[in-house]
Amino acid sequence: MSITVPALVTASAGAAFERATVERREIGEHDVLIDIAYAGICHSDIHQAREEWGTAIFPMVPGHEIAGVVAAVGPGVTRYRVGDRVGVGCFVDSCRECEACVAGEEQFCSRGNVQTYNGRYADGSVTYGGYSTQIVVDENYVLGIPEGISLDVAAPLLCAGITTYSPLKHWGAGPGTKVAVVGMGGLGHLGVKIAHALGAEVTVISHTLSKKDDGLRFGADHYETGDRDTLRRLRGAFDLIINTVSADLPVDAYLRTLKLDGTMVFVGAPENKQSFHAFSLIGGRRRLAGSNIGGIRETQEMLDFCAQHGIGAEIETITADDVDKAYERVVASDVRYRFVIDTATIPG
Amino acid sequence: MSITVPALVTASAGAAFERATVERREIGEHDVLIDIAYAGICHSDIHQAREEWGTAIFPMVPGHEIAGVVAAVGPGVTRYRVGDRVGVGCFVDSCRECEACVAGEEQFCSRGNVQTYNGRYADGSVTYGGYSTQIVVDENYVLGIPEGISLDVAAPLLCAGITTYSPLKHWGAGPGTKVAVVGMGGLGHLGVKIAHALGAEVTVISHTLSKKDDGLRFGADHYETGDRDTLRRLRGAFDLIINTVSADLPVDAYLRTLKLDGTMVFVGAPENKQSFHAFSLIGGRRRLAGSNIGGIRETQEMLDFCAQHGIGAEIETITADDVDKAYERVVASDVRYRFVIDTATIPG
Repeated sequence: MSITVPALVTASAGAAFERATVERREIGEHDVLIDIAYAGICHSDIHQAREEWGTAIFPMVPGHEIAGVVAAVGPGVTRYRVGDRVGVGCFVDSCRECEACVAGEEQFCSRGNVQTYNGRYADGSVTYGGYSTQIVVDENYVLGIPEGISLDVAAPLLCAGITTYSPLKHWGAGPGTKVAVVGMGGLGHLGVKIAHALGAEVTVISHTLSKKDDGLRFGADHYETGDRDTLRRLRGAFDLIINTVSADLPVDAYLRTLKLDGTMVFVGAPENKQSFHAFSLIGGRRRLAGSNIGGIRETQEMLDFCAQHGIGAEIETITADDVDKAYERVVASDVRYRFVIDTATIPG
Repeated sequence: MSITVPALVTASAGAAFERATVERREIGEHDVLIDIAYAGICHSDIHQAREEWGTAIFPMVPGHEIAGVVAAVGPGVTRYRVGDRVGVGCFVDSCRECEACVAGEEQFCSRGNVQTYNGRYADGSVTYGGYSTQIVVDENYVLGIPEGISLDVAAPLLCAGITTYSPLKHWGAGPGTKVAVVGMGGLGHLGVKIAHALGAEVTVISHTLSKKDDGLRFGADHYETGDRDTLRRLRGAFDLIINTVSADLPVDAYLRTLKLDGTMVFVGAPENKQSFHAFSLIGGRRRLAGSNIGGIRETQEMLDFCAQHGIGAEIETITADDVDKAYERVVASDVRYRFVIDTATIPG
C-alpha cells in the first residue's frame, strides 16, 4: 500500500511552491523508508522547476540533497536499520547491469539512471524528491551519514559535496598539487574545503573579493579575481582547475593558467557554448574535462572523508514558506552558501 | 668557420622559393654535420612561410622533417658516427634545465625550445631548416633512423609521425581500444598506420570516402564520413579521437562519439576558435585535449616502433623546382600523403 506524505509541490514551470501530498511506493523487499530531516536547494532544482533544462514532469517535488533517519526497512534490507542516519543524492536507481553501473559509477549508467525527482522508474512511475517529509528508496541507493556530521550540513554534501569531491579525487588533488576553484557558491565553497582537506594548495578565483575572508577560513591559501590581468599573472600556476560557475568564461585565459598536463574540469554547466583555441590545449598538453556527481561508492567515501575532516556545508536553514524567496536568492547568488529546508515545516 | 650550403629560400611572406645559400655554424664540440637526403613538407611550413602564425623571420628556409646521413662529428660527439642514418625534427635545442626538458619532454620546454627553422638560438642567430643540403645540429637533438626505413619515407615521421604517435601512446591506444582518426592527410594517414600497429581498432573519419581504399590498406578497420547522421550513429563508440584536421568541427557531436572517460585530442590546430557545450564533457566525464609533437626520447621510440612495424609515410617525392606548386597542392589537400623534397636537386 502506498504512503501519502506531505511535500512542497510546484504545479507547472515556475509556479510557486504549495503544500500538498504525494504518494510514496509501498516499502518493497529492499526498500528503506526515510524520515527526511533536511533537503538542500541545488541550483539545478531551479533549472528543472522552471523547465529550463528541457521538458520536465509536473507536478514536481524537487530535492536531491536529502538527509534524514531510517523509519522502516523492507524484509530484505541488510545495509540499514531503523534509526540509522542516511542520505539520498541525485539518483535513486539505475540499470545495475551496464559497464558503468557494474563499475560503481551509476552516475554514468548507460541507460540513464533514475533521477531522484523529475524522473521515472522503469515502470513509468514518477519520482518525487526531498522537499518532503518521507521518501522510499532502494537501500543500494541510500548513503550512510557518519556520526560527526549534523544532518543539516550533511544534506548539501549529497550533490554539491560529491560534485566537487569526485573530480578532485579523479584528477589527483593532494599534497604537492595546486588547485584552483572557480566560483565561491554552493559547489565552490565545498570544493575549497575538500581540496584543502585533501592537502592541495588551493586558490579561489571569484568575480569579486567579497567572500575572501570566508574562502580563507574554508582553507583557501590564495584568493583571486578572474580578471584578465590576474589570469595572466597566474599563467602556468595550476595542476587542476575546478570550474563551478555557469557564467561564460574566457576559457583560453584559464587554460593558460594550467601547468603541463593540467586539466580544467567543468562541474558548472554554462548555458551558452564556450569556446577555445586548439593552441591553448596543444601548448602544454592541457585538457578540458567534465565531471558529473559521483557513484554510490564514491559518494559514501566522500561522506566518510567529510566526517573525518569535519567538513559540512555552510548553510542557511529555511522553512517551507521561504522556498520561493530562496530560489530568487540562489539565482542572485545571494546565499552563503546553501539553503537547506527544515522539512519539519512542510506539513500544513 | 661557418659552412655555406645550398638551400631553398623564401625572401618574404608568400614569396616564391629561390635557390640560394645559407650559413651553417662551425661544427662544435657536440655537433653533428648531416648530409640531408630528404625534407618533408609540413603544412606548418606553409603557415610560417606565409607568415600566417604571427611574425616570421625572413629570409626563411623551412623544413623540420629531415632525414640524412652523418657527414662529420665534433670531437665530443658520442651518440653518432660518420655514416649513421639520422633525422632532425621540429626543434634543434632547448634549455635542458626546466622540468619539461629534464623529463625528456623538450617539446614543452618552459623557455621555448629552438625551432628547427624560423627560430633563434640563445645567441640570437637564426635557424634555417631542412630545405637544404646540409645542417649542423647538436647530437642531443638528432635522432637515429633505424635500418629498415628508407630515408625518404622516414623524413615525415620526424613531425607527422611523432605528432600522432605521442597522443596515441599517451592516451593508451592499444589492443581492446577503439580509436578514431579524423582526417586522412599527412598526419592522419600516419595516425592510422601507427594506431593499427599499436593494436587498436581504427576508424577513419574523413569528409569524403575518396581515400577509403587507402585507409583500409593502411590498417583502418572502418572508414566513415563526418556528417551529422554518421556521428549520431557512432555515439559512444570511441575511447580516443585524434583530430588531425584544421577545419572547424562540430565538437559536441564528436564528443558524443566518445565512451565514458574518452578523450578527443587536437593535433591539428583550426584557425578559428572551436566551441563546445559543457554538458558534452560532463556527460561521460569526457575530455578535450591537445598534443604537441613529442620529446627526443619519444621521437626515437617512435622511429624504432615504425621500423619494427614497417611503417613509413606515403610520399610523393619532388624536386626543388616543385616546392611552390607543392605548397598549393597541400593547401588544396591534393597530396597522397606527404611531399618530400629530394634535396639533391637543390644545388643550382
